Amino acid sequence: MENIDLTEIKSPADIRKMNLPELKQLASELRTALIDKLSVHGGHVGPNLGMVEAVIALHYVFDTPDDKIVFDVSHQTYPHKMLTGRMQAFTDPAHYDDVTGYTNPGESPYDLYSLGHTSSAVALAAGLAKARDLRGDKENVVAVIGDGSLSGGVAFEGLDYGATLGSNFIVVVNDNQMSIAENHGGIYADLRLLRNTNGEGEPNLFRSMGYAYRYVKYGNDLKSLIEMFRSVKDIDYPVLVHINTIKGLGLKPAVEDKEDFHFSGPFDPETGAPKYEEAKDAPEDYGDLFARIMLSKMKEDKRVVTITAGTPGVLGFNKSRRLEAGSQFVDVGIAEQSAVDVASGLAKGGMRPVAGFVSSFLQRAFDQFSQDIALNRQAATFVVFYGSMFGMNDETHLGFFDIALLSNIPNLLYLSPVCKEEFEAMLDWSVRQDKLAVVIRTPGSSAVSNKNIKLLDDYSMPEYDIVRRGDKVALIGAGSMFAYMSLAADMLAEQGVNATLINPRELSSLDKRVLDSLKDYEVVITAEDGIIDGGYGQKVASYLGESPVKVINLGLPKEFLNRYSYADLQKECGLTPDSIAATAISALKK
Amino acid sequence: MENIDLTEIKSPADIRKMNLPELKQLASELRTALIDKLSVHGGHVGPNLGMVEAVIALHYVFDTPDDKIVFDVSHQTYPHKMLTGRMQAFTDPAHYDDVTGYTNPGESPYDLYSLGHTSSAVALAAGLAKARDLRGDKENVVAVIGDGSLSGGVAFEGLDYGATLGSNFIVVVNDNQMSIAENHGGIYADLRLLRNTNGEGEPNLFRSMGYAYRYVKYGNDLKSLIEMFRSVKDIDYPVLVHINTIKGLGLKPAVEDKEDFHFSGPFDPETGAPKYEEAKDAPEDYGDLFARIMLSKMKEDKRVVTITAGTPGVLGFNKSRRLEAGSQFVDVGIAEQSAVDVASGLAKGGMRPVAGFVSSFLQRAFDQFSQDIALNRQAATFVVFYGSMFGMNDETHLGFFDIALLSNIPNLLYLSPVCKEEFEAMLDWSVRQDKLAVVIRTPGSSAVSNKNIKLLDDYSMPEYDIVRRGDKVALIGAGSMFAYMSLAADMLAEQGVNATLINPRELSSLDKRVLDSLKDYEVVITAEDGIIDGGYGQKVASYLGESPVKVINLGLPKEFLNRYSYADLQKECGLTPDSIAATAISALKK
Repeated sequence: MENIDLTEIKSPADIRKMNLPELKQLASELRTALIDKLSVHGGHVGPNLGMVEAVIALHYVFDTPDDKIVFDVSHQTYPHKMLTGRMQAFTDPAHYDDVTGYTNPGESPYDLYSLGHTSSAVALAAGLAKARDLRGDKENVVAVIGDGSLSGGVAFEGLDYGATLGSNFIVVVNDNQMSIAENHGGIYADLRLLRNTNGEGEPNLFRSMGYAYRYVKYGNDLKSLIEMFRSVKDIDYPVLVHINTIKGLGLKPAVEDKEDFHFSGPFDPETGAPKYEEAKDAPEDYGDLFARIMLSKMKEDKRVVTITAGTPGVLGFNKSRRLEAGSQFVDVGIAEQSAVDVASGLAKGGMRPVAGFVSSFLQRAFDQFSQDIALNRQAATFVVFYGSMFGMNDETHLGFFDIALLSNIPNLLYLSPVCKEEFEAMLDWSVRQDKLAVVIRTPGSSAVSNKNIKLLDDYSMPEYDIVRRGDKVALIGAGSMFAYMSLAADMLAEQGVNATLINPRELSSLDKRVLDSLKDYEVVITAEDGIIDGGYGQKVASYLGESPVKVINLGLPKEFLNRYSYADLQKECGLTPDSIAATAISALKK
Repeated sequence: MENIDLTEIKSPADIRKMNLPELKQLASELRTALIDKLSVHGGHVGPNLGMVEAVIALHYVFDTPDDKIVFDVSHQTYPHKMLTGRMQAFTDPAHYDDVTGYTNPGESPYDLYSLGHTSSAVALAAGLAKARDLRGDKENVVAVIGDGSLSGGVAFEGLDYGATLGSNFIVVVNDNQMSIAENHGGIYADLRLLRNTNGEGEPNLFRSMGYAYRYVKYGNDLKSLIEMFRSVKDIDYPVLVHINTIKGLGLKPAVEDKEDFHFSGPFDPETGAPKYEEAKDAPEDYGDLFARIMLSKMKEDKRVVTITAGTPGVLGFNKSRRLEAGSQFVDVGIAEQSAVDVASGLAKGGMRPVAGFVSSFLQRAFDQFSQDIALNRQAATFVVFYGSMFGMNDETHLGFFDIALLSNIPNLLYLSPVCKEEFEAMLDWSVRQDKLAVVIRTPGSSAVSNKNIKLLDDYSMPEYDIVRRGDKVALIGAGSMFAYMSLAADMLAEQGVNATLINPRELSSLDKRVLDSLKDYEVVITAEDGIIDGGYGQKVASYLGESPVKVINLGLPKEFLNRYSYADLQKECGLTPDSIAATAISALKK
């Protein structure tokens, strides 16, 4: 078999001309190119390597882009991008960053949505299918979803509705027997039963939801996949195709350690060893710190329970730590809503639950935070990771909306430590107390130390820390912004302006005593690591609205930014120390 | 059989002494008392009448409150309240209002949670069961959930996790073959199959999720229920008991019209006819108005689709209107997340979707609003009902949090009409356009007319309506608050203060041109029908924070209020016309 020139593949039309041996060669070359890129660039390794054949077969059989494919989470769409006009971004190192890590309608008409949160593809595709039916058209609509993503409630809602369409609706379940880490949930025993019986066993979850059901035992075999997709193409009722694939196929380290190679930085393709250097003096990340603290607390107190919704690694709970924590570590699967409710039930049952979430994902459980935690005053602790402009910068994973989201829920105390010592003190207090629902937002991306921060034994009442007392100008810096405000205060001092510097410690209510003392100042500047709208600073502006003092709120714009530069954004938002100082000086002059 | 003196029943211990004929007599008397109360007081009729026997059997068999029962939504817990120390609230008209309509830990230790949103009970109970296991205790944990509530994603998440507990966990599915209206979703065909096969058929949804499964054909037969609950009591693995009940049993009109008698005002128990008078000149409600508009639009344009998540009645779509709308009306079941995603798919597929939600329930789909609508810029329209302090006043159903929730999402235009004419103009524009995601908040509880409001052909850009031009004082009244601001402006005029009166038309962004013109005013007062924190007024306060003009934000406190008086709350918040006028005068004097 001759080599295929990948750069000649401009669209799926180019692969539809191929015969099976050529398609196999194509799969092999795509996989090699993927490993070449991923090993130097990093990215989602396992999900993409496991889906090479399925993606080829989908584009080979279905008439994309007229037929519609919605990929759930879309972290498995690198092969899809390679086949739909974006090969260069995978074969030419100079162009590796031309594409995002997820489907992106701005890049290609083959990409229907910008998706990065799991479990929504089925409901979105059901809407597309319903639109087609109302239009009287006939294109195929396909949703592709992983077994791990099935645990999210909206996946179930979408399947439930999709089953009622009574028309063409094809759901492909990519079963690689993994979530980001291992799967958790009752449905996974059923998926195992179906795999073990070549799809023949009962009970069958998918048939119980109203789907015709097909099983592909070798989900990395092009011939099987093509035959199956051909058999369901143009079908006029909802069908679910369950394909059994191998996550990480073609890269031995990724097959052997599926969790670590779900997403990875650069690595040695032979050994799997990380190729990026961990700087000797790099600060600890908040996951590691959190896991160390929690392991110690769980040993001391059997009532302490750590909870994750499918992202144990973010919480620092690697496999050995999960083993160590035993039954006091709960992974509910990718199911943020039940994670919050299980925390509520644990609290009600006398436990001390602590659940950790990625900022961008916790918004999936807003109703549970509001109703089942806050309204019911359950003393559970929630730790927010990557809740920062310095966290993830894909438009689907932004970490700067959670202040506006959580700080406006009654009965929910949202704490904003400024350094790792304060984080630890707040976590320690929160786990000890049994009265309040508490959220703690880890500041920025790495656990920076500040030994000068005054720690409290009790964080239940709003009590601003006046770190430095001045006059005329007050700088209130929340969370990661405190450090920049502190530097700005130093700069102002050099210019003869003696600023008051405040760590507000929390975002959900105001220390009115301190704010009242600022009413005869000339200017109060707030800075927070989140959007200004609906955030902390606007509460201050509102409270001081009747006073003559000028209030300036610094923070981020209400926008879905994408792959932005941290430094540029910080500058644009006026959040650098010199910019903060300049803002103060300018306001004083007005 | 002698009559039982219901008032002698103080706790479940009193019924555990009864024999089966006595329990049957008890059921009959509870039902009679319920009908007596409901027919004069109103409330949830069908859900409670259908569950009388099951609730008796649960308290008879299980050792409550040591054994734990979590009732989903808890609108079916009137019989539970009658058996757990609150009988007087159902037998003595003078005490009818002593209890809330939902479980309430403040009322009784038998009530574990204040619950009013569906689908969370299973996950909450799973948390309670996990807590029990960690404590090493042995009490039974029971979740009771209706078939209609099963469609909510968090129910599935809870079932998925609960199945992994490996210990006592009892889920009772009360299958009355109804949601609020009829059920929608693929799983309901499976429930029918199970009913038709006396629980023997395959596929079996619950077994596929990992539960041992039991079926009770006569779910209103005390003997069957007691035997079944005895057989699963103290079981040491997760089991699901599927009971087939008759919604509304004992009240003929409620059995015949299950939808209208899900919740009802006072009625004639013989005929079912409403006993409350519809005032001749009562304003139309927004559901009726919405349904009339949408039916006309759907006829004109086949691309227009109306969507509900299980609450068609709220949208004014009674049975005949649903029939009239045909395939252009979509009910996804109680599944707000998929409702939003299906709207997104429909928009992507070229349709003009319009989904309507109760304010308190739309928060269940925050992630979908953010990711699948706003980030992806899908031109769908969402109409919010009861988004008002004048809407529902149970602490579980409050309608004043949605401004803070939705107005801080980028790319989402949140419109706030002040009267029915403006609502109609905004809805009309939104359905015609295909660029923006739009939310429209119906103002207050009934469709009040204001013929003087200036309507626009295009609401895409922030453009405040300066209804009256004055100086020194500006009153910005959003949505239902506009009318009170307008009256306040009249009062101020009488006192010689010529106030500028503004209808901001929207809540998600600012008309900076108009706000700039207010910078040399003495005072700007904003009023909105929602909490102040995170809301519209704080955006104004922040924007004007550097100007000398005083800004006063009026609105509601960030609190879970319960069964409050509308008039008292309005007064307490300073939202009456005279109070607004007084606030302005007082600010002018400062």
